[in-house]
Amino acid sequence: MTEFRSVVAATGEPTGPAFAVHGPAEVDAACAAAAAAFDTYRATTREERAAFLEAIASEIFAIGDDLIEAAMSESGLPRARLEGERGRTVGQLRLFADVVRKGTWQQLRIDPAMPDRQPLPRPDIRLRMIPVGPVAVFGASNFPLAFSTAGGDTASALAAGCPVVVKGHPAHPRTGELVAAAITRAVAACGLPAGVFGHLVGPSNELGAVLVQDQRIAAVGFTGSRSGGLALVRLAQGREVPIPVYAEMSSINPVLLLPEALKARGAALGTAFVGSLTMGAGQFCTNPGLVLAIEGEGLEAFLAAATEAVSGAGAQTMLTGGICKAYLSGVAALETANGVEKLAEGLAGEAMQGHAALFRTTAQAFLADKALGHEVFGASSVVVVCKNEAELATVLSGLEGQLTATLHMDAADEALAARLMPVLEVKAGRILANGWPTGVEVCHAMVHGGPFPATSDPRTTSVGSLAIARFLRPVSYQNLTTGLLPPELRDDARGDGAPRLIDGTLTL
Amino acid sequence: MTEFRSVVAATGEPTGPAFAVHGPAEVDAACAAAAAAFDTYRATTREERAAFLEAIASEIFAIGDDLIEAAMSESGLPRARLEGERGRTVGQLRLFADVVRKGTWQQLRIDPAMPDRQPLPRPDIRLRMIPVGPVAVFGASNFPLAFSTAGGDTASALAAGCPVVVKGHPAHPRTGELVAAAITRAVAACGLPAGVFGHLVGPSNELGAVLVQDQRIAAVGFTGSRSGGLALVRLAQGREVPIPVYAEMSSINPVLLLPEALKARGAALGTAFVGSLTMGAGQFCTNPGLVLAIEGEGLEAFLAAATEAVSGAGAQTMLTGGICKAYLSGVAALETANGVEKLAEGLAGEAMQGHAALFRTTAQAFLADKALGHEVFGASSVVVVCKNEAELATVLSGLEGQLTATLHMDAADEALAARLMPVLEVKAGRILANGWPTGVEVCHAMVHGGPFPATSDPRTTSVGSLAIARFLRPVSYQNLTTGLLPPELRDDARGDGAPRLIDGTLTL
Repeated sequence: MTEFRSVVAATGEPTGPAFAVHGPAEVDAACAAAAAAFDTYRATTREERAAFLEAIASEIFAIGDDLIEAAMSESGLPRARLEGERGRTVGQLRLFADVVRKGTWQQLRIDPAMPDRQPLPRPDIRLRMIPVGPVAVFGASNFPLAFSTAGGDTASALAAGCPVVVKGHPAHPRTGELVAAAITRAVAACGLPAGVFGHLVGPSNELGAVLVQDQRIAAVGFTGSRSGGLALVRLAQGREVPIPVYAEMSSINPVLLLPEALKARGAALGTAFVGSLTMGAGQFCTNPGLVLAIEGEGLEAFLAAATEAVSGAGAQTMLTGGICKAYLSGVAALETANGVEKLAEGLAGEAMQGHAALFRTTAQAFLADKALGHEVFGASSVVVVCKNEAELATVLSGLEGQLTATLHMDAADEALAARLMPVLEVKAGRILANGWPTGVEVCHAMVHGGPFPATSDPRTTSVGSLAIARFLRPVSYQNLTTGLLPPELRDDARGDGAPRLIDGTLTL
Repeated sequence: MTEFRSVVAATGEPTGPAFAVHGPAEVDAACAAAAAAFDTYRATTREERAAFLEAIASEIFAIGDDLIEAAMSESGLPRARLEGERGRTVGQLRLFADVVRKGTWQQLRIDPAMPDRQPLPRPDIRLRMIPVGPVAVFGASNFPLAFSTAGGDTASALAAGCPVVVKGHPAHPRTGELVAAAITRAVAACGLPAGVFGHLVGPSNELGAVLVQDQRIAAVGFTGSRSGGLALVRLAQGREVPIPVYAEMSSINPVLLLPEALKARGAALGTAFVGSLTMGAGQFCTNPGLVLAIEGEGLEAFLAAATEAVSGAGAQTMLTGGICKAYLSGVAALETANGVEKLAEGLAGEAMQGHAALFRTTAQAFLADKALGHEVFGASSVVVVCKNEAELATVLSGLEGQLTATLHMDAADEALAARLMPVLEVKAGRILANGWPTGVEVCHAMVHGGPFPATSDPRTTSVGSLAIARFLRPVSYQNLTTGLLPPELRDDARGDGAPRLIDGTLTL
């Protein structure tokens, strides 16, 4: 195949002009350019790099409605959602510009020389974080703007000082092309080498495989399926020089309904839950695919309200035909699983649409079948009815790693919640109370990450300002002359606004 | 085999009472105890944890001369070196106590709620680092105190709040037993659960393999050979839930002699170089195994002085018979390598002793044979004579990742050094000028790490206070009640001395 076309999500029909399919030659050229740009790009000042991130934000916004319309056509997501997502994408770039300017990410450390120390003098030792090198970013289908070409991975890698080579998601080539062109304009406007940003497109997995195996790539960011993420991890580990893969993969985001909250507002929780479940056709990494609760009247009220809400929920266009097919087969598997009862399904839709589905099972049945704990990507959820706290704790402890864990609780549930907290902390990257996991705030304290298989590396986050840490490594400088020290580590750089750990004491 | 004995390094003869060989049952018990202790241990206050680290330091010091004598017998290292190493081990524990107290490692972040934000309110989101879980530590043979049972990996993991299961190095079981007993006394004295520290011993690699594959182990620290480290990485990646391995493995620590420095003091550099090369029988991870310089009179003066110093260097007892054998075979391989000339070898010694060796080759020969760039663990070094700066840069660029890179330079060399800096940063974890790489300061700005194969994870260090970051992961808390928030994230904890990033601004 030498070219491919954009597909209208709602119909599955190709549209618009064809895109050239990239292959090994384009990967080689993009990686060579990225490697050549690395030293120049990483030597930019904090202000230059921040201004570049802001320029990308402005260029993306300046595309205007063409971008929204392309994304609507290619993803099937509604206008309001995509306008919000554009705001988030642009805001994320500006957040990283602010982070770059503040300079905390550099982790500057200075241990001054102690020439008179006995038995040996201490040399002057200074440390900073430097970018790891060119980063390969795999765009995700479910956020064609915020987790794709100029999404969080790209923003955080560029903020760290790494050139980025994006492997655009084939589900939205037109959207990707518009965004890539905006980044390319920003690169040129800021006088940076062209290799700071590269963009590869094509429908095959081989393209990504070649990219991850290119020896000039130093790290990988990925958001997508568990099988896709694990395949990239394997490729990255099989290289002559292994590299880290930050894959955000699979999570069913358990929601725990505690007894007093259920008693007080079971029905209201049921309705609100379905709002979170069906948002964006359920195509969120943080979609609540599992509900845990102790049996009783409150839970029955929750289930009745949720059943009613799901039954009335309209079908929604899914991102791609493949995702729709996988979703429907996941739902079909739940329908025939042992000890699982279908409570409701949403209204039937067109060929490319998925409808919501709600299932009920017992703790015993859930524990007996590991498959019930696997992600079904879409608006499907399983409610596990537990006999008591002990059963609830057993189910919770048996879960795989998660992006999120949610507690619905009243004041009288706090003692139970406190007993669960140590388990929740070990299982999830984010714990939230009396809200829904969908909707991930882009801020400094956000963790969008978590133990395997939620991600391939729970020491990090892919959303929020801490994401920059993924693409940095420490270097220490011992007894270097001022001329050889990086500017930010020289004595005359004190007062540049970046915090420094001086002899172990943090100074602003 | 059910028991094994300590071996006198100088003679290869067994001595003292036998040690029981541990197997899967002991691994299971140690990991179960560590997992059971995890929640209690990680809930300790900063003060409690710091006091525990200090108690370990005191207990180790209180062992007295028995410890030094055991380590001398088992490692063959001299008294002064081991007394220094004990000081370093104890100092390292105290440094981490100070780090734990200061609390910067918690990376506290608070993004306060914005209830009136449009179009959606912002929830209250807070972040802290939590320990990853029980850590397996593999003691190294070359630092029986500072990189072993209570070495840097153990100290940093305990500081992070992780229980530790040590797989003691079979080359120093008596030393390890004494130190393990000291830690165990500190655990008891501090009223901590016994599982906070476990100690496994045995001569086989299988013991370590079982440990790394235990599902309760969350991370691994290792210092040793490249083959050993890579084997652990493979095991850790093959688990149902993969875990990180921090393996510090292999480095030849290039020393670059720049032209003006060579001209000014070639002979003095040659003598000093051999001092670093032969220290501790060359058994340092940072031993200078490669020298790069441009041909000329200065280099000839360096080589003449180094040749003389090596020729007069006495043989030294090596850590183990296996290490001695591997060293001698590495030296033998260099003797027969194409284009390599042996300049000098040290005085012959006893059966368990290694003698220094110095080789000379050309850039061309070095580039033609990858094996010349592999570590020979011991007091052997290869001087690569380059025709000009371009050849020097080519050799440097072709090197694998390193723990250190050293520049010897005068003021007039600074322009050349500045051209080399970007390459050095990409190749090494620590760059030093006008010193020798042996001797790794335990401080805040130290990086004892570097690109593969120097380590399996260049994003970290295994020496210095930043090492604590290896055993932490972020968790975020959204809209939790004060009662459910970890104490350090509550509003009333402000002023506890730990820095906080509040809405993106660092506050002390």
